[in-house]
Amino acid sequence: MKKFINDPADVVAEALAGLAAAHPELRVDVTERYVARASAPRPGKVALVSGGGSGHEPLHGGFVGPGMLDAACPGEVFTSPVPDQILAATKAVDGGAGVVHIVKNYTGDVMNFQLAAELAADEGITVETVLVDDDVAVENSTWTAGRRGTGATLLVEKIAGALAEEGAKLGEVAAVGREVNAASASFAYALTACTTPAAGRPGFDLPDDEIEVGVGIHGEPGRRREKLRPARELVRSAVDALLDAKPLNPGDRTLVLVNGLGATPLLEQYLVFGEVATVLAERGLEISRRLVGNYVTSLDMAGLSITVARLTDEMIRLWDAPVRTPGLRWGV
Amino acid sequence: MKKFINDPADVVAEALAGLAAAHPELRVDVTERYVARASAPRPGKVALVSGGGSGHEPLHGGFVGPGMLDAACPGEVFTSPVPDQILAATKAVDGGAGVVHIVKNYTGDVMNFQLAAELAADEGITVETVLVDDDVAVENSTWTAGRRGTGATLLVEKIAGALAEEGAKLGEVAAVGREVNAASASFAYALTACTTPAAGRPGFDLPDDEIEVGVGIHGEPGRRREKLRPARELVRSAVDALLDAKPLNPGDRTLVLVNGLGATPLLEQYLVFGEVATVLAERGLEISRRLVGNYVTSLDMAGLSITVARLTDEMIRLWDAPVRTPGLRWGV
Repeated sequence: MKKFINDPADVVAEALAGLAAAHPELRVDVTERYVARASAPRPGKVALVSGGGSGHEPLHGGFVGPGMLDAACPGEVFTSPVPDQILAATKAVDGGAGVVHIVKNYTGDVMNFQLAAELAADEGITVETVLVDDDVAVENSTWTAGRRGTGATLLVEKIAGALAEEGAKLGEVAAVGREVNAASASFAYALTACTTPAAGRPGFDLPDDEIEVGVGIHGEPGRRREKLRPARELVRSAVDALLDAKPLNPGDRTLVLVNGLGATPLLEQYLVFGEVATVLAERGLEISRRLVGNYVTSLDMAGLSITVARLTDEMIRLWDAPVRTPGLRWGV
Repeated sequence: MKKFINDPADVVAEALAGLAAAHPELRVDVTERYVARASAPRPGKVALVSGGGSGHEPLHGGFVGPGMLDAACPGEVFTSPVPDQILAATKAVDGGAGVVHIVKNYTGDVMNFQLAAELAADEGITVETVLVDDDVAVENSTWTAGRRGTGATLLVEKIAGALAEEGAKLGEVAAVGREVNAASASFAYALTACTTPAAGRPGFDLPDDEIEVGVGIHGEPGRRREKLRPARELVRSAVDALLDAKPLNPGDRTLVLVNGLGATPLLEQYLVFGEVATVLAERGLEISRRLVGNYVTSLDMAGLSITVARLTDEMIRLWDAPVRTPGLRWGV
C-alpha cells in the first residue's frame, strides 16, 4: 500500500485536522468527530446533518456551509459514524427549528442515525430523516437492505440545504429532500478496486480486462462483471438501467451528475458526460443542470457514476441558489 | 489499460465535446481545438490565453471564464498545442488591448507559443508571454530547459486573470503574472505512474514500496527514488526543498496549494495540508490563503504537489476577486 498517511489508525483524525487548517469557516471537532459551520447554530433555522464512513470526500464534510449542510459526521473509513457522534453534531447545530438527518441507505448508517435521532428526541430536538437510496444497480447488497445511497446524496444535500437556508419549516425541508431522492437514479462502473488504509490492499480483485458493473461506493459487487467496452456502450447501458428503474418522458428536464469515484481523470469524466448528453438527447430529454467531477468518491477507485434526476421548477431554483462549501460553491 | 474512452485517438476531441455539453458558458471549438469564453472577445480587455498538453485537467480549459483565462488550447495528451491552434485562440479572444500567453516551461510549449506570438504580431496583436517555472525539484529535465511549470500555473492564471478583468494594461497583467511565478515554489511526489491513452501502459515502473521524489506532471523523473515514508516526513522534506529554493522570512504571508495529481484521495490531500500547516507554523510563516484538491493533474497518477507562494497585499486582493470557471469558482 502506498498512501500519503502516517499511522493508518490516525488517517481520519489527521485529515480532519487538515480540513480545519484549510477551512477556518468550519468548526472541526476532532475529538467529537464532526464538522460544523463555524457560525452554527443559527436560531430558527432547520439544520441539516449528514454523515457516513470517511473515504467519500468531499462528501460529507466538504459539503458543510451556507446553502448546504450545517454539520457532517465522518466515521472511520467506510464505517458508519456512531450514535453519540451524530448526537453531538445534531446538538451543535440545532437552532430550535428541528434537524434533518440525511442518511445514505447502508445498514450501519441507518441504525446509528436512528439511535441518534431517538437520543436527540430525548433532549427535545425533533429530527426528520431523509433516506437516500438512488443507486438502481442492485435491489439489496452486501451492505444494504434496499438500494444503496450514492450520487444523489449531493443533490439532496444541495437542494434541501437551499430550502432550509430560506427559512422553510422542518417538514418542508425533509419533503423536498425525499422528493429529490425519489426523482434520482444512479449507476456506477468500477475499473479497479479501492484500497482502505486499514486493509492495505485492494478490496476486491478484478482482472485486467474486466469491470464491475453497478459497483457500490465501498466496492460492493454490482450486477455482474464484464469485459471493458467503449465508453459510449457503457454509457448507453447505464442510461438504460437508470431509465428502466425510473422512467422519464420526452421533454422532462434533468440534472446529470457525472461523478468520478477517485482515480478517473476529468478528461474521461467529460468524455463520458458528452456521451450521456448524446444519449439523453436521443430520448428527448433535456439536460437543464449538470455537474462533472469527483464529489461522491470511493478513495482511489478508478470508476465513475452517472446520476440522472428529474427536475421541477422548484428544484432548479434551489439548485441555483448560492452555496459556499469546500466541495461545492457558487453565487458567493 | 482500462479507461472510460472510445478510440484512444479521439480522447481529446471527445472530452472537448463533453466539456462543451457541460458548460454552455464556454465556446468550445472542437475543430480548431480551443476553449474560450462564449462572450469573448471583450473590447478593451487584455486577454489571457494558456494551454498545454491535455491530461492535466481542470488545467487549462477548466480555468476559462470571468476572472481567469479568456481561452485555453489543449494539445493532445501530454503534447504541446500547435502554433496555429494557439494563434486561433489568441485571435478569438483578442479585444484590442493585447494578449498574455501563460506558458508552462516545457520545450514544446515554449517553442509553439513563441511561434504563435510571432504569427499574432504579424496580424497586429501584441502578445506578452509569462513563463511559469515554479517546480524546484530539478534544474533541467527530460522535457525542459530550466525548471518545469506546475502548480503555480493556477496561481498565475487566477491572479493575472483578476487584474485583467479590472481593466489593467497588458504590461501590468504580464508583470503580476511574472511576480506570482517568481514568488512560487512547487514540489511533487509520485506513488505511481500515470497511463496515457496512446501508450496504454504506465509511463514508468516504480517498485511497490518506492516513490518518485520531485516527479514532473508528465511523470518525468525527479531528484531520486526512495522508500515510501510517513506523510509528515515527506512534507518536511518537500517544505525544506521549497524554502531552500525560495527562502521565506518569519511573518511572510503565504498561499499553500496542496494539489492532487489524479488518483490521490482528498482524505490524504487534507492530511498532507495539515502537515504543511504544522511545518509552516514552526517556521513562523502564515498561511493566508489555501486550496486543496485536484487542479493541475497528471491523468491517473497517484501523487500530489505542494506549492507555497509568498503573497503581497495586491496578490491577496486579486486572489480573492470573483472567479467563475468550471474548475475554480467563488464570488459569483
